[in-house]
Amino acid sequence: MLTGTDIGERYRSDASLTGRYLPKAVIRPANTEEVAATLRICNAHGQAVVVQGGLTGLAGGANPDEDAISISLERLTGVEEIDPLSATMTVLAGTPLEVAQRAADDAGFLLPIDLGARGSCQIGGNLATNAGGIRVIGHGVTRDNVLGLETVLADGTILSSLSKMIKNNTGYDLRQYFIGSEGTLGVITRAVLRLKPRPSGRLTALCALQTYDQVVAFLARAQRGLPGLSAFEAMWEDYFHFNCEAEGQRFFETSPAFAVIVEQDVQGHETDSEEFETFLGAALEDDVIVNALIAQSEKESRLFWQVREGHAMDRLLPALINLDVSLPIGEIGRFAAECGAALAARFPQAHISFFGHVADSNLHIAFSTSGSDESTQHAVDGIVYDIVRRYRGSISAEHGIGTLKREFLGHSRSAAELEVMRRIKHALDPKGILNPGKVF
Amino acid sequence: MLTGTDIGERYRSDASLTGRYLPKAVIRPANTEEVAATLRICNAHGQAVVVQGGLTGLAGGANPDEDAISISLERLTGVEEIDPLSATMTVLAGTPLEVAQRAADDAGFLLPIDLGARGSCQIGGNLATNAGGIRVIGHGVTRDNVLGLETVLADGTILSSLSKMIKNNTGYDLRQYFIGSEGTLGVITRAVLRLKPRPSGRLTALCALQTYDQVVAFLARAQRGLPGLSAFEAMWEDYFHFNCEAEGQRFFETSPAFAVIVEQDVQGHETDSEEFETFLGAALEDDVIVNALIAQSEKESRLFWQVREGHAMDRLLPALINLDVSLPIGEIGRFAAECGAALAARFPQAHISFFGHVADSNLHIAFSTSGSDESTQHAVDGIVYDIVRRYRGSISAEHGIGTLKREFLGHSRSAAELEVMRRIKHALDPKGILNPGKVF
Repeated sequence: MLTGTDIGERYRSDASLTGRYLPKAVIRPANTEEVAATLRICNAHGQAVVVQGGLTGLAGGANPDEDAISISLERLTGVEEIDPLSATMTVLAGTPLEVAQRAADDAGFLLPIDLGARGSCQIGGNLATNAGGIRVIGHGVTRDNVLGLETVLADGTILSSLSKMIKNNTGYDLRQYFIGSEGTLGVITRAVLRLKPRPSGRLTALCALQTYDQVVAFLARAQRGLPGLSAFEAMWEDYFHFNCEAEGQRFFETSPAFAVIVEQDVQGHETDSEEFETFLGAALEDDVIVNALIAQSEKESRLFWQVREGHAMDRLLPALINLDVSLPIGEIGRFAAECGAALAARFPQAHISFFGHVADSNLHIAFSTSGSDESTQHAVDGIVYDIVRRYRGSISAEHGIGTLKREFLGHSRSAAELEVMRRIKHALDPKGILNPGKVF
Repeated sequence: MLTGTDIGERYRSDASLTGRYLPKAVIRPANTEEVAATLRICNAHGQAVVVQGGLTGLAGGANPDEDAISISLERLTGVEEIDPLSATMTVLAGTPLEVAQRAADDAGFLLPIDLGARGSCQIGGNLATNAGGIRVIGHGVTRDNVLGLETVLADGTILSSLSKMIKNNTGYDLRQYFIGSEGTLGVITRAVLRLKPRPSGRLTALCALQTYDQVVAFLARAQRGLPGLSAFEAMWEDYFHFNCEAEGQRFFETSPAFAVIVEQDVQGHETDSEEFETFLGAALEDDVIVNALIAQSEKESRLFWQVREGHAMDRLLPALINLDVSLPIGEIGRFAAECGAALAARFPQAHISFFGHVADSNLHIAFSTSGSDESTQHAVDGIVYDIVRRYRGSISAEHGIGTLKREFLGHSRSAAELEVMRRIKHALDPKGILNPGKVF
């Protein structure tokens, strides 16, 4: 347990940097029983608890309230087992994602959960937020890759459902209650994750397109024509142009309206790259895309991804606002146009650009303007989420609600849905000690 | 509403044929509002309700209790929308699965939910039981293919979460609560399902193997070597032999210890069948399989499947007992041997045979003995589920719990898990009117 001046500054906030308070104490349990003992005591005393993992969230979900203590899972770490026959990994919640990914790779498997923060985010946090990322198109959301879960309830009860089975219909699927609940229903301590065969290779292309309709048509073709399709990332012109410039890259003669990275995992058949070329050639011929560059090396593929990952956007920090919404795939183009116009009308000088995973309905919006403050963020949120509501989209595709999106939750959820969420919260955490004030 | 002698015999029981009572009345709502009105009245009067779909379940989950009324969804039927851009289908709960499959097919898509009872089972029941089936290896369980859900709560509240988005992290994922809850938490009235690209072809082979270790090794190879792998069905010798004899088929010179149907969905590349042959050839060469027959036509593929589907087993009815369990994939071979020996020791004259989806951990056991009665079923359940418990398996892979497996639920779930299930039940259905006595 850390108290007083031993509590480092890093326990104040997740990556949104909006945390205001340090926890009153930081408990660092080394096993599930210590998590349970901590919660039993806290529950008896009505002590608010926030669970902290890698603190890479962007919604304020792991920020301590004024009177909360923190349970940090940084010592609850390790890959306990890889079962090659079941193709499963049993892992402790505090294990960094990248450590788990490497362990899977060493055993000849792919851990299909992946996101940019892999180096510091932890499995427990990935599960508690149902983290998304770039591989959802091929392997589903995090939820789909969890076979078993061990969780500690608010009262210290250990709930162990560490199944390795894919089919298992024995009563309510309790895993699902905790995955994506942002630490408000229980503390995830251990998980059994699905592993997939490790691909032997990856083919990557950067394509230029002229309209959003072409992006959707190209996606449909890729889903039919490229078995093992593992990424489909779209960048709108402003985003692609900004990041190419910043990285000193020039991929096409003229900047296209849309740039798409398409990636296929392959198992080393001789014909793989030939078929990838044939696929792109047909798309060119049919005017679905206007240009395509196939990465000839890992290094070239990294260049494409550097632009997509937009590290250059960091120079817009701290003024950068990154929004994360989802919409029915067919409507993303119209939404982006409408949203861009509404933001530009209010903030004529701002940088506004769009990018996203598209294939899984997810769109990100990068926004930056000089002299930006909290009221700017609030205004941007209001403009974007109002349009999201009209499109019957989601105000959070993969970042979660935390505190930062709480005010807008009603834009995507009905009063009846919120009431059911509250009933479940009360059933599992009647004293409300787990991450109070988060989600709702 | 049907009452008195208008209530047909078919409302008495699901396909387990264990139902004892006719419902006091059958309500047949034509829309969600009528479902809501029915439940409002029932909840006010503490009237028990059982929801009935296609009545193809095998766990007694849709059988009326002595004083229950039935809500039959047979009139709540129809595919409301197919959105080709989002690749989604919006469908009413009473729609037969096969009708929904055909609508998807007509639109150029595949509805990835599929099971033997497709002709009569309904989407609502598929979702309420998280139905499994033979395509889980390629497309996940039913749960993974549901994007949006409309449900009516016990008190008549309509909970509408009809999202078309794949990524959507806005508070608790309420869909998951109702999927697989066997009608005890709410009545599913409408769903948004994911569609996949319709394959242009399917390659099928029937393979002979000598050991269960080979089955597992062959599965691992298929998962790596066959993109679009869509079925992997194993039959133990007794099952294969019995059904081949009964169908008058002879595929191999000598009856193999294991027969496996492996199937790959393809998109019509010229090289597809060549690669399939190469894959099987390599497996033969490496002594993973000892023989392989590739179906040369749809008709030949049907012959393989006829044996697997085991319609000939029906001649063992009504004495046939069909068990549905799941186990970690690597342990299924040992489990089957142990289970077979234990059953044979107790019932030396019985037919005992094993078959299953294996790739998704699912094993079925067919058991039949002359003079079988309720006490036989109970004895068989006890023998099998005791072994399942020792293997930390699941007493229900895909059939659910209903009433028939209720007594054994504690073999796969801990007291803490059951307590949480009860708390959730109480939170969503405080008067306990929804399918009382089912699951727990």
